[in-house]
Amino acid sequence: MPAPNLLYAQSGGVTATINATASAVIETARKHPSRIGRIFAARNGIIGVLREELIDTGREKPEAIRGLRHTPGGAFGSCRFKLKSLEQDRAHYERLVEVCRAHDIRYFLYNGGNDSADTTHKLSQVAQTLGHELHCIGVPKTIDNDLALTDVCPGFGSVAKYVAVSTREASLDVLSMAESSTKVFVLEVMGRHAGWIAAAAGLAGSKDGEPPHIILFPEVAFDQERFLAAVKDAVERFGYCTVVVSEGVKNAQGKFLAEAGTKDAFGHVQLGGAGPAIAEMVRAAHGYKYHWAVSDYLQRSARHIASKTDLDISMKVGVAAVKLALAGRNAVMPIVKRLASRPYRYEIVTADLADIANKERKLPPNFIRADGFGITRAARTYLEALIQGEAYPPYVDGLPDYVSLKNRLIDKRLAEYKV
Amino acid sequence: MPAPNLLYAQSGGVTATINATASAVIETARKHPSRIGRIFAARNGIIGVLREELIDTGREKPEAIRGLRHTPGGAFGSCRFKLKSLEQDRAHYERLVEVCRAHDIRYFLYNGGNDSADTTHKLSQVAQTLGHELHCIGVPKTIDNDLALTDVCPGFGSVAKYVAVSTREASLDVLSMAESSTKVFVLEVMGRHAGWIAAAAGLAGSKDGEPPHIILFPEVAFDQERFLAAVKDAVERFGYCTVVVSEGVKNAQGKFLAEAGTKDAFGHVQLGGAGPAIAEMVRAAHGYKYHWAVSDYLQRSARHIASKTDLDISMKVGVAAVKLALAGRNAVMPIVKRLASRPYRYEIVTADLADIANKERKLPPNFIRADGFGITRAARTYLEALIQGEAYPPYVDGLPDYVSLKNRLIDKRLAEYKV
Repeated sequence: MPAPNLLYAQSGGVTATINATASAVIETARKHPSRIGRIFAARNGIIGVLREELIDTGREKPEAIRGLRHTPGGAFGSCRFKLKSLEQDRAHYERLVEVCRAHDIRYFLYNGGNDSADTTHKLSQVAQTLGHELHCIGVPKTIDNDLALTDVCPGFGSVAKYVAVSTREASLDVLSMAESSTKVFVLEVMGRHAGWIAAAAGLAGSKDGEPPHIILFPEVAFDQERFLAAVKDAVERFGYCTVVVSEGVKNAQGKFLAEAGTKDAFGHVQLGGAGPAIAEMVRAAHGYKYHWAVSDYLQRSARHIASKTDLDISMKVGVAAVKLALAGRNAVMPIVKRLASRPYRYEIVTADLADIANKERKLPPNFIRADGFGITRAARTYLEALIQGEAYPPYVDGLPDYVSLKNRLIDKRLAEYKV
Repeated sequence: MPAPNLLYAQSGGVTATINATASAVIETARKHPSRIGRIFAARNGIIGVLREELIDTGREKPEAIRGLRHTPGGAFGSCRFKLKSLEQDRAHYERLVEVCRAHDIRYFLYNGGNDSADTTHKLSQVAQTLGHELHCIGVPKTIDNDLALTDVCPGFGSVAKYVAVSTREASLDVLSMAESSTKVFVLEVMGRHAGWIAAAAGLAGSKDGEPPHIILFPEVAFDQERFLAAVKDAVERFGYCTVVVSEGVKNAQGKFLAEAGTKDAFGHVQLGGAGPAIAEMVRAAHGYKYHWAVSDYLQRSARHIASKTDLDISMKVGVAAVKLALAGRNAVMPIVKRLASRPYRYEIVTADLADIANKERKLPPNFIRADGFGITRAARTYLEALIQGEAYPPYVDGLPDYVSLKNRLIDKRLAEYKV
């Protein structure tokens, strides 16, 4: 009887290092041919499982799988597709089990954030009910860094590094221009609910006057008057002002800044997000010349400036996930436990998905400076550890040599299922 | 009698490598103590000369000057301050000569773009008229790559690399999300009048279906209907669409797609917002989920991903500028002459400022694909040469170790002059 098969899938917003996790999963699984038969990857996450679109990773050469370590994006495709409760989406859950059964899949590794942990947890319950032995392992990943229990989420360290480096660089630019041109620079970063990424920008400077001068967190209700006063103060003291704003910043009424944006002369709501809204607010109040940037996908795909520490963690959780599956564990996730900060030491431990699913970790209050516009020493100690080391991809002809896979699907064995 | 002094100044928008030019200028000048006495740098460009705010670079340690090679921004401060004609701004020109005379400055090196070449040229004429021997040398720099005669402008190769890398990375992200989420990604890049930077994004992919699928150049009048059809076509054929849009794109009536409403010191309309405008247009027409990024200052300060070729060129023009000054030349600029493309070979030659001042080089028509949405093989050959090689800065604690200078001013000898 052949060894049972393993299915790996990617979920949610991708990162600079999720493929490194995939690489570690596949390479580790390949080392156990007597325990793990074929290694499948779902095309476009859970959607691909529902559709029975399973990629045969056995077709990929070892060099290609190894190349995933330095390739951003989600090599097999990811998805935004949230399964609801067992009652509401029972047909979906049963279909997932049916697909696993049809292809003798006994190990399911789902690489994602909160929602994916929930899906993985529920799937393990349904499989049990339906009598199909399925070891469901969550594999952490999210740039939002908002998973409970783990010290850090794989993917976050690299965004943190990108944002800190970019803030330092752009601020040097503004500083040189400030005397006769741009005085205020606004960088909008991701983070709809939690300010982890915005906080990372705080690493760009540490001494008085060093940028960023103002960070706007989603955890702190936006106070326009205090903000504008702080901008003025920075420009007067340092000649310029760098503002880092999280996309998720809201005013006291709980409305996103981007939505609360101004209207133009024709009454049209002004386009753009929190960054341009903030910049326009500064211009209207103070008349300073401004520039703004929105890093958007650039920040989470910037494998060229990935954190070596993040890369290592991303691979280690992949290895650990396969080992947990082989150890017969179910409904668990390998997470990171910090042992020391300087230098960073950590170990991979195991958490129950039930304790992670649907929980959201915000910035702890003691990470936000008393004035609400910066980070504390505690935050700095926490964050600094995560951006250590560079892990440059190989370059060919001046550009990173990112791999692309064949992604050949295996034959279907079931009737079509529409999603 | 002590040797006469040299004055170096930075002008216009700064780049990832203008400080490398500064480093080369100062290091080269320091090698000729019998010919060049003190080496000054103007604080904030020509404004600092007018104000007699001259930095004594002799106070800076060799390690600091060397560190400028890997430090973005303008280490001495730059400016946006355009001197008008000799008739209109004669007082300014005469003040410049007066300051040079007061500090025995006989070499003036101005590091900038078109406007700065013009200023340098005019200054050489006024100095001659006023009987002060002053060797005025223009040193090229501009991410816009729009200087006449030179094969490339120092600073451009690094932006080109940043934009090509970012386009490749973000496109891998979108590709993974496209099935159930974002289908269209729009990246706005700089380029007010010329599409050089937008063209560089074309290096991200070369085969059919590879991103960017659409580039919008300022040289091509924006045709909304054709554009929207091209987006739809890309999404249907490849599952997603990456659009790179130059900030300077205009419609057939010559109106910018998005105008921020403010004007800069030169009276130019301050741009920013073509990206979100384009994205919203796509949503309204097709309903595709989109993301957009505006890289703004991030692109031109991204020293962490600078082109080694660009860095080399930036230093070589600095060396050449000092040599031209020592050779007694006046009103000239060292420029780049391409000898071969693969591999790139070039030499530094000399051009008259009169042939460069106020001229603007746009993308040649044969660099733009017939459909107006991409680059040709000729463009690719030209651009590829410029992004070769990586020149990573040193890192400390996970961040680039950029230097900052003391920037101590020398004592003034003249009456105050307001600008």
